Order: sequence, then structure tokens, then C-alpha cells
Amino acid sequence: MNQVQMVTSAANPRIRLLKSLQSVKGRRESGLFPAEGLRLTGEIKAPWKAETVALSASFYDANRDALPQVVTDTLQAGGDVLCVPDALFGTLCETQHPQGILAAVRRPEMLPDDIAAGNNPFIIALENVQDPGNAGTILRTADAAGADGILLSKGCVDIFSPKAVRASMGSVFHIPAVYTDDLRGTLRRLQKTGIRVFAAYLDGSRSLYDADLSGGSVILIGNEGSGLSADVAEMADERIRIPQPGRAESLNASAAAAVIIYEALRQRLGGERNAY
Amino acid sequence: MNQVQMVTSAANPRIRLLKSLQSVKGRRESGLFPAEGLRLTGEIKAPWKAETVALSASFYDANRDALPQVVTDTLQAGGDVLCVPDALFGTLCETQHPQGILAAVRRPEMLPDDIAAGNNPFIIALENVQDPGNAGTILRTADAAGADGILLSKGCVDIFSPKAVRASMGSVFHIPAVYTDDLRGTLRRLQKTGIRVFAAYLDGSRSLYDADLSGGSVILIGNEGSGLSADVAEMADERIRIPQPGRAESLNASAAAAVIIYEALRQRLGGERNAY
Repeated sequence: MNQVQMVTSAANPRIRLLKSLQSVKGRRESGLFPAEGLRLTGEIKAPWKAETVALSASFYDANRDALPQVVTDTLQAGGDVLCVPDALFGTLCETQHPQGILAAVRRPEMLPDDIAAGNNPFIIALENVQDPGNAGTILRTADAAGADGILLSKGCVDIFSPKAVRASMGSVFHIPAVYTDDLRGTLRRLQKTGIRVFAAYLDGSRSLYDADLSGGSVILIGNEGSGLSADVAEMADERIRIPQPGRAESLNASAAAAVIIYEALRQRLGGERNAY
Repeated sequence: MNQVQMVTSAANPRIRLLKSLQSVKGRRESGLFPAEGLRLTGEIKAPWKAETVALSASFYDANRDALPQVVTDTLQAGGDVLCVPDALFGTLCETQHPQGILAAVRRPEMLPDDIAAGNNPFIIALENVQDPGNAGTILRTADAAGADGILLSKGCVDIFSPKAVRASMGSVFHIPAVYTDDLRGTLRRLQKTGIRVFAAYLDGSRSLYDADLSGGSVILIGNEGSGLSADVAEMADERIRIPQPGRAESLNASAAAAVIIYEALRQRLGGERNAY
């Protein structure tokens, strides 16, 4: 079993790796993403794995008799656990007041079609959603509603960025989030298996409350400012609009997603609605 | 009719007033709040009124032949319109790349009971919601759904802060947002008029989809971390839970609000669901 290593140099390769995870480039090149704080790192259980964990010196001093499970797991699996001076630790974190624990987690390798493997799939697909808070919040809502996974177009924000991971409140560890270079092609393959694609569309021809979302479904949510591209929207089996009897021009992307995801859940639960 | 005034000094009283609106204290003391950019200032129509408008010099130069309506309206009503050097203008704005127009708008004077004056009222009440993005997004969702207004406990974030106003996407100008020093007392008075209070509660005894939200209703949403206080939750006619068959521990406050507001709308629309 490995031991906790004392590291004080910013030039240490593990420290440089952790620091690189703040950028999209660093995350892409390493295939890792950062999870900060006790709550998020507490979600790192199989099949997830921390390859490196950093602890601030003051966190280590305060907790050395009862280190978090992720520390023990990582040492046992032969990973690196570093104890780092508080000031250096601060440079590795995005938050202003870090709790003193940061892990580098391997991104899962999944294919878009993997998330549609179950019975009666329930999938959320995002096209060019740009705000990490929206992307993380939609992932959290999809997780709460028991969706099978979330598909992201190449043009979406990185859902493994610190802000998105934080907004997901751990849901990034619960349901698969998979990028596709070819959203149209992926949707077409899913449609061939009988899954129906519903596009959230301001001028959709069908009211949300008139659509049948109880079967295998993909719910498509577009960019915050411009909505869905015409190319992707035209692939939908139905374009649904959320009723807006008030004066707002539109809903926030994560609010719109919540409304549609939960109408789908309401329909899918049917007579079991009160069981949850 | 007033004329556009050239102002170059940060010590000018109007400039100091505009700058003060970045803080809660400044907004409270003046009874004004700032609206930045063309989209938001474009919403300032009666009964709303800009008391002061500032334009950046480059915005003024580019638009002097066709100034926005709010500029003409403000000059005609005897308000101040200032043309300010770009660098000084930048210090008055919260955004990184301001569009060049900023208005100081008078906050409306409304009492909590005013928003329940209509038939079959539909009200959202927030207790200690802290995040300006959440508060603004909930206001936007309530507006889209045609709610009558939003009640805020004293402990909520300032809904007239620049971040919340921006997140509301103009909805702050569409439906009333009213603070109450005594949320319990206000709820009690509303209940006496026949309005029912529904508390969003993780362990609520009734499923959302089993609750009758079609009548006069207040939907109560609590703090992001701790939910509703016991004091307020115990006043609810019903504690409703949003079904969460998945693994997330809870929903984001604005996502939870969207789900409940839209289930209420679905029930309230009844047979008219497809008309919107």
C-alpha cells in the first residue's frame, strides 16, 4: 500500500498535472477531471477511481487519524496521495475557500449508444449548451428523475469542468454524460431503435402537455441564446413548446429542461406516481 | 425637455448615485436599482420609470441620431441623461463588456397582499434563497407561467441586484417581486382569504403529482442548502415532495421551483392546455 507523500514544489509532475485540470486542454489531454471538496470526493466509488488525491497540509493535520475513504482507496489501489502546503494547494483549486481535498478522476469511456442500452430509455441531449451552471444543473435534474444518461454535442461546455461538476452536486458520478461528434448521426441511430426524439422549441407545434413522453425518449435542449439549430431540430419526431401564458420571452435552459424532464417522469411513472 | 448632459467627473452626484447602486446599501437607501444593457433598459415602460440614464461616450456617438426610447422618455419626464467617458462608464457597470447604457430605476412600492388581489392567485414565495441567479431564474419562470407575483422573505438575496435582474431576463419588469419582514404573518393572511400554501419539502408527505394545485396557491421554496425553516414549513397546508427515483439527493432550487410552478400551471390550464 502506498503512503501519503509530502510535496512542496509547484514543479512536481503530479502537482502540474492537477493544476492542468483547470483547463479544457489539460482535461482532454489527460482524460482526467478534478473533483474538489469532501462532498464530491465522497462520491468517488467504483467504477470511479481517483488516480491522484491532494490534501492541504492543514486538512491532513486535522484528519490524519481518520482520512476520508477516497484517500485509503487511492493508496490501496497504488495511486498517489499528496500532502501539499496550504498556499500551493490553493493554486490547484477553483473555489475561493477550498476544503483541503482535491482528486483527479479518470473520465469514463462510453459511447453515445451505451446509454440507450436499457429498457424504455430516457435520455437528455444538449446541443451547444454553453453555461457550465446550466449543464451541471441539467445533469442533476436528469439524475434526480432517474434518466439513463445525457448526450452532449461537441459544441457544449465541458461537463467535467470544475463549475459544471460543482453544479451537478455529484450527479456527474451517478449517470453517464457522453459527448458525440455527430449529434444528428447519434439521434438517427437511436431513432432506428424506436426511441422518439422531442425537441424543446419556442414555436413548437405541440404543447408539452399534449405530447406522449412515456416511451423511449430523447429530450433535446438547445443553446441558451439561439435554441436548437435548424439541422438538429428538423430531426425531431416532435417539436414541443412549453406553455408560456405570461410575459417572459423564454425560460432559462435548465428551467426548461426541468419542466420537460419532469413532465416525462410524470407520464412514465403513471400509476406509480406516489411511490416516489 | 431636458438635454443630454456631458459628465466627466467621478465626483458628480449622479455618477456617485449610479455607482452606489452596485451595493445592497446603495439600492436600499435610494430606492433605485440598476438596469444594464439595451435589452433590460428596453423594458422600462410605464409604470416603470428611469430617473437617471447613463450612456457611454462611444454608445452616444454611435446612436445619437436614434437614441433608445428610454432616453427620450427620461428626458421628456425631466430625468437626467448623462454622457460619460467610456472608462468612467465601465466603473458603473457590473458586466465585463457593457453595451453602453445603464439606467437607475425606481423600485415599485407594493405590499405583500397586493399581489394576491386577483382571482385565483398564483404566488411563489421564497424563504432565504441566497443565490441571485436562482432568485432571478425563479422570477423568470414564474413570469413565463403567468404567476401573479413573487414574495421574498427578508433573508433572501436582493432580487434587484444586477446579477438577479440579469438572470430574470427582464421579468423583474413584468411581475411584482415584494419583500416581507414577516413571511409567516403574510402567509397567514393569505390563507385567511382561502389561498392554500404548498411547501416544497424533500420529505413531504404528498407527491407533487397527487396535490391539487389548481386553486389559489402559494408555492413555498426554501434556501439552497437547508431548505425551508421548520417555522415556515409548519404553516403549509401541504408539504409536497418532488418524486426523485434517481440518485441525486435533491434538485437545484430553481429547477425545483420550475417543476412545481409548471405542474401548477398544467393543472390550472386544465382543458386549455393547448391554447398556449
